[in-house]
Amino acid sequence: MMIQQILQEKKQLVDQYLAKLLATTEPANQTLYDSMNYSLLAGGKRIRPALFLMALDFLGKPSAAYLDAACAIECIHTYSLIHDDLPQMDNDDYRRGKLTNHKIYGAGMATMAGDGLLTYAFTLLSEMKSVTPDIRCQLIALLARAAGPEGMVGGQAQDIEAEHRQLTMNALRTLDYYKTVRLLCVPLDMASAAANAEHETADAFHVYGLHIGYLFQITDDLLDATGSLEEMGKNPGQDQIHNKATYASLAGLAGARELAQEECDKAVHAVAQLGKRAEPFQELAMYLLHRTK
Amino acid sequence: MMIQQILQEKKQLVDQYLAKLLATTEPANQTLYDSMNYSLLAGGKRIRPALFLMALDFLGKPSAAYLDAACAIECIHTYSLIHDDLPQMDNDDYRRGKLTNHKIYGAGMATMAGDGLLTYAFTLLSEMKSVTPDIRCQLIALLARAAGPEGMVGGQAQDIEAEHRQLTMNALRTLDYYKTVRLLCVPLDMASAAANAEHETADAFHVYGLHIGYLFQITDDLLDATGSLEEMGKNPGQDQIHNKATYASLAGLAGARELAQEECDKAVHAVAQLGKRAEPFQELAMYLLHRTK
Repeated sequence: MMIQQILQEKKQLVDQYLAKLLATTEPANQTLYDSMNYSLLAGGKRIRPALFLMALDFLGKPSAAYLDAACAIECIHTYSLIHDDLPQMDNDDYRRGKLTNHKIYGAGMATMAGDGLLTYAFTLLSEMKSVTPDIRCQLIALLARAAGPEGMVGGQAQDIEAEHRQLTMNALRTLDYYKTVRLLCVPLDMASAAANAEHETADAFHVYGLHIGYLFQITDDLLDATGSLEEMGKNPGQDQIHNKATYASLAGLAGARELAQEECDKAVHAVAQLGKRAEPFQELAMYLLHRTK
Repeated sequence: MMIQQILQEKKQLVDQYLAKLLATTEPANQTLYDSMNYSLLAGGKRIRPALFLMALDFLGKPSAAYLDAACAIECIHTYSLIHDDLPQMDNDDYRRGKLTNHKIYGAGMATMAGDGLLTYAFTLLSEMKSVTPDIRCQLIALLARAAGPEGMVGGQAQDIEAEHRQLTMNALRTLDYYKTVRLLCVPLDMASAAANAEHETADAFHVYGLHIGYLFQITDDLLDATGSLEEMGKNPGQDQIHNKATYASLAGLAGARELAQEECDKAVHAVAQLGKRAEPFQELAMYLLHRTK
């Protein structure tokens, strides 16, 4: 199967599950739920849950039993976008081709929508019926570390501070490790934990996830520098407006493309040892290298 | 032992544990950690973890084994204060007698400090060494539901919407149930889950927690209407400035005091069946009724 088909299939599974996820019987909470659903159901590539489900496929575990966890990952990702777009953060107007959450619901409600999605991710994981409490705790611990102060939130905080200084390439690598890489790597770690994978497999997935994470961020920088609102669903050129160091600004467009190719090669190499069944992961790396949105 | 002594003892336990909790070996994340610790270690009464530890005492469980969970509750409470004080929310300048987080670190970093504390609470709970994964999952599920969109976050969202309309007493009760009551009741539910308490005891604690929650909110409204910055550690009169409906504005000061007395009486009654050992809970209700900060 082509990687685009696999991604489409996983996206459909996740989208269908997400569509039924958030509902309230309390009329007084309706606006909050509308606000959460506005961003959660705005589309998006669903790359993180797709990585999780693809790794579970490889490890022989059925997607259906892990959709709560897949959606928890996407809830965390969506919350991070809502808060990242807030006026006191990047102050962005468009996301996934639609007005940002705070442009519709106001900054206060958007803050709460993010908080709600973040918290609800742990409701989903802690109440999973299909896996043991031990596995649930492992999944929660992995996701909370990757998303929290020593993960994505740490990277966002570094991003705030980076607006006031000129970053070195090393500092940018550190920032992106926290801001982007950890949340793209953790779906693979979570799949390994869920399936109690052998160490060698888990290590290969983990190294793959790290390179996929950097690859994703470098192509994100390239798209911000060269893409259009139509392609990306958000306004390009934001990094330059915010005077943010990126791979494109530090290494130039050609240099950043080379770096992306290197990360792609390393990702492909990392899963080569897993044999033919791991080929979709290699295809995914090449797909991300050439993505236009 | 007098209730003030018990509260002081629990507060000390929690404060000591919190002081050592958040540290990073990543220099790039230092400001975020400073920002989280600024609010987490700003004092506060630690009522929610104290309730949790008092209930565990009653149920024969040692505080030392549950400090991670106690501090997780306080991390969630502190995050809720940081986000509540943000410019797009209540826009408050003082909290616990100090400048609010965003006044020191800026609104972006304060948003991340809140996100970091919220996420870290689930790291603490999922990695507890002293209790089984099954209990950990129960604690996470209880806290996430009480703090999330059908809990505190829902109440905060209702609070945002309430600024634009005149609430009835019923709507105010609903708002406060979500905004305040659930996070004051859940420490008791968590203790019952941790100790696998008998249904009658768990029910008595739950009803007690609900009334303590309303009692706390009503006295909060009264303090906002009549207290001073020195006593409260935050600027009084904010409810009137924001044109917020409160028990004081809807029932008058005398009416609100009567309502507080009723909630206190009901709380005292709820734990009467638990016998003499539950007297500290009755003393706590009376202490909260007469609190001046």
